[in-house]
Amino acid sequence: MTIPQRLTIVTIGARSVPKLREFYRAIGWTENEGCDETFTSFTIATLRLALYPVERLGAEAAPNEPVVAAGTWNGMTLTLNVAPRDAVDTALKTALAAGGSLIGGPREREWGGYSGYFSDPEGNRWEIACAPWLTEFE
Amino acid sequence: MTIPQRLTIVTIGARSVPKLREFYRAIGWTENEGCDETFTSFTIATLRLALYPVERLGAEAAPNEPVVAAGTWNGMTLTLNVAPRDAVDTALKTALAAGGSLIGGPREREWGGYSGYFSDPEGNRWEIACAPWLTEFE
Repeated sequence: MTIPQRLTIVTIGARSVPKLREFYRAIGWTENEGCDETFTSFTIATLRLALYPVERLGAEAAPNEPVVAAGTWNGMTLTLNVAPRDAVDTALKTALAAGGSLIGGPREREWGGYSGYFSDPEGNRWEIACAPWLTEFE
Repeated sequence: MTIPQRLTIVTIGARSVPKLREFYRAIGWTENEGCDETFTSFTIATLRLALYPVERLGAEAAPNEPVVAAGTWNGMTLTLNVAPRDAVDTALKTALAAGGSLIGGPREREWGGYSGYFSDPEGNRWEIACAPWLTEFE
């Protein structure tokens, strides 16, 4: 049993969505349709998920700054869309069998889909989601 | 002047690359060639970058946990590859003009490329990178 090698949404938990979206529009990015003051997204293609020692990554990306403490949620989620709905349950089971921890769900979500969250062994948060209108993931 | 609407690498700063890569292999993912105990990556296609209020995201992804303090590096970077090398400088200038902050570089990196880091207005870390062997971004 495997999980599709897929990452469909990187969500930044924003302190201010209106201010932060202005930045991404200011660099010339085009928002998807249907976005508002509490949610916005920008379609992007082609991605690698990489792992690298946090000390080395910090030396480049955050010199002279502490790393967020292990076990603290870092304000981001990685979403993996699947379909149909049953595939959410299956993927979560695979993640737990591989050593992940269930964080919440799976359950119906207010945005109209069905999803559950797990964390990898270092606390990185993944959402396995079925959005009924995203049929390309079946 | 705009930055290509692109996100090419999500890098998780790992406390232990060997242990964490085991998890991703255990869910059935295939590593790229040339990976070792200090770096690994998994190619993924199709992505949206989303913004959502951190309190709402946390209610789903980290119930009953505090959010990492604003201004603290969260242990992740978002990389955007460009080419040729001059495009790194141009993209960084665009980011700064849009309200981003320069974190480091641009400069030669030990992995063989040229890159610089900026943070968006909420501290999310982006690397603009030119890897000479990734000519598809020209």
